[in-house]
Amino acid sequence: MKDVAARAGVGLKTVSRVVNAEPGVTPETERRVREAIAALGFRRNDSARVLRKGRTASIGLVLEDLADPFYGPLSRAVEEVAREHGALLINGSSAEDPDREQELALALCARRVDGLVIIPAGDDHRYLEPEMAAGVATVFVDRPAGRIDADAVLSDSFGGARDGVAHLVAGGHRRIGFIGDRPRIHTAAERLRGYRAAMEDAGIPVDERWVSLGVTDPGRVRRAAEEMLSGPDPVTAVFTGNNRVTVTVLRVLAELDRPVALVGFDDIELGDLLRPGVTVVAQDAALLGRTAAERLFRQLDGAAAAPERIVLPTRLIERGSGELSPAPAR
Amino acid sequence: MKDVAARAGVGLKTVSRVVNAEPGVTPETERRVREAIAALGFRRNDSARVLRKGRTASIGLVLEDLADPFYGPLSRAVEEVAREHGALLINGSSAEDPDREQELALALCARRVDGLVIIPAGDDHRYLEPEMAAGVATVFVDRPAGRIDADAVLSDSFGGARDGVAHLVAGGHRRIGFIGDRPRIHTAAERLRGYRAAMEDAGIPVDERWVSLGVTDPGRVRRAAEEMLSGPDPVTAVFTGNNRVTVTVLRVLAELDRPVALVGFDDIELGDLLRPGVTVVAQDAALLGRTAAERLFRQLDGAAAAPERIVLPTRLIERGSGELSPAPAR
Repeated sequence: MKDVAARAGVGLKTVSRVVNAEPGVTPETERRVREAIAALGFRRNDSARVLRKGRTASIGLVLEDLADPFYGPLSRAVEEVAREHGALLINGSSAEDPDREQELALALCARRVDGLVIIPAGDDHRYLEPEMAAGVATVFVDRPAGRIDADAVLSDSFGGARDGVAHLVAGGHRRIGFIGDRPRIHTAAERLRGYRAAMEDAGIPVDERWVSLGVTDPGRVRRAAEEMLSGPDPVTAVFTGNNRVTVTVLRVLAELDRPVALVGFDDIELGDLLRPGVTVVAQDAALLGRTAAERLFRQLDGAAAAPERIVLPTRLIERGSGELSPAPAR
Repeated sequence: MKDVAARAGVGLKTVSRVVNAEPGVTPETERRVREAIAALGFRRNDSARVLRKGRTASIGLVLEDLADPFYGPLSRAVEEVAREHGALLINGSSAEDPDREQELALALCARRVDGLVIIPAGDDHRYLEPEMAAGVATVFVDRPAGRIDADAVLSDSFGGARDGVAHLVAGGHRRIGFIGDRPRIHTAAERLRGYRAAMEDAGIPVDERWVSLGVTDPGRVRRAAEEMLSGPDPVTAVFTGNNRVTVTVLRVLAELDRPVALVGFDDIELGDLLRPGVTVVAQDAALLGRTAAERLFRQLDGAAAAPERIVLPTRLIERGSGELSPAPAR
């Protein structure tokens, strides 16, 4: 800290103010201090114990949507790890809005969290570089960071989707639909890539009317499903890109007078009790959260090496809906 | 603030430190300041704007379980209201542990939240009195506060359960089971009271083997359900006390070779797609959250009157499982 103060030409108290996001520092001075920090590689986690003596450690979790059931077990796992380390978990959600993600992440930094676990909504995280340089531990989960080098813990969206679609192909389907989230979301793009790879592996050209990406609200998903399920050559199977899509497509299929196969990405509660049971590509949300949080605390302990991307496998669970044969041509 | 400082015999800065939970105040001084605050009815929300100029407003939400789907829409609604008021939402969960609830609520106060929305795990909230006296706005939701006078926004657990059980009675059932959460949880006790009231209204004496309260983990709930569904005089209908219980009882019923009626408290996703559909007493989790958060911001605006208890109605949704007739006696 003394070196930072000397290099920036300010007092120790000013460095402390900048690091702890306290008021009373002009933008110009803050810039000088941040440059000195960046130049010297000053890590807040080394000094944080002293600077923030007496405070409870805390970590922030930036979620996408507090109401999406996929994030429930993930949040709980992050909180459990935080608790094992005596830290408080503070979280909030971006509602899939990159500006809101940035605002929330920086507000958490201003409140002096020791680290951040982020499910990113945006694809440019350079805004976090000063915070990371100042020692805020950072791990991305579910989706990777954009334009910065940072730890990420992901599910194998590509491989999982490829396996799920290959399972439908193996069951005799050739006209297979894909309904997913907006393509700028990393997981949605990866799952679409998995769909295309499985179709290509099977030598099936993809009719672009079988592919629909967009917001996952029930209205949009319902229209997409109804469209690819109607007409002279409807799809005989659907691969759904996440649990929000699956739930709506299940409702559409329940209204049809013919069986249509379904494999969904993400497990869903009660999916085993429906008839047929819902075949899914399950990811382990709790393990994602736990792995990300443990990685974060390793960073805080100064034990982390270079940023890494950890990819967790998915698991195909056959329950009936994905094993339905193609309906005979009409 | 001047009056508080004068009464406590300290400087203004010391009062500010105590109110903002900053270090550098001895316990004895802090006690004197808090006493002066209590005696004078000093409200932090009056002075907070000045004391904390330049900070983002924030409110804390103390949940019971981040992974319970009931709390997803509730949390999101609180966050939406916070956002409408330009405030950040910080939350964490108590895991149904009163000590952890207290630790979390006080940690949020130490981080200078402007208000707290609490789903309480404990039944003694006197620990919050100094914070409330110092101006931290406080609203309890889903369950009321214990041993203090505070705003609470609740669902009509008693009336909802009574209606649901009366619906089963009207369908011809007399041997009706009740499986609920631990009796020290307010909602669980109220729903049991509703069950007993409906049975009494119908002149049906309750066999205590039909009633089972305890943790909602699948193992305990499964054993309770299997027990009341076996023997020479099994129940012909079950009322489940919350969505966690309902999900497990649905699995038990799916394995039976006879129809058993079910009405569950809380709606559950995909409950409409099961056969039969799941009849529920639905509460509006989003409205609970929104009402509580709006009440909190009214307190912060100084517009709230004396503490109130607001009770929101529930809604019986008939989908089939609650309309099954009693199986003929064996």
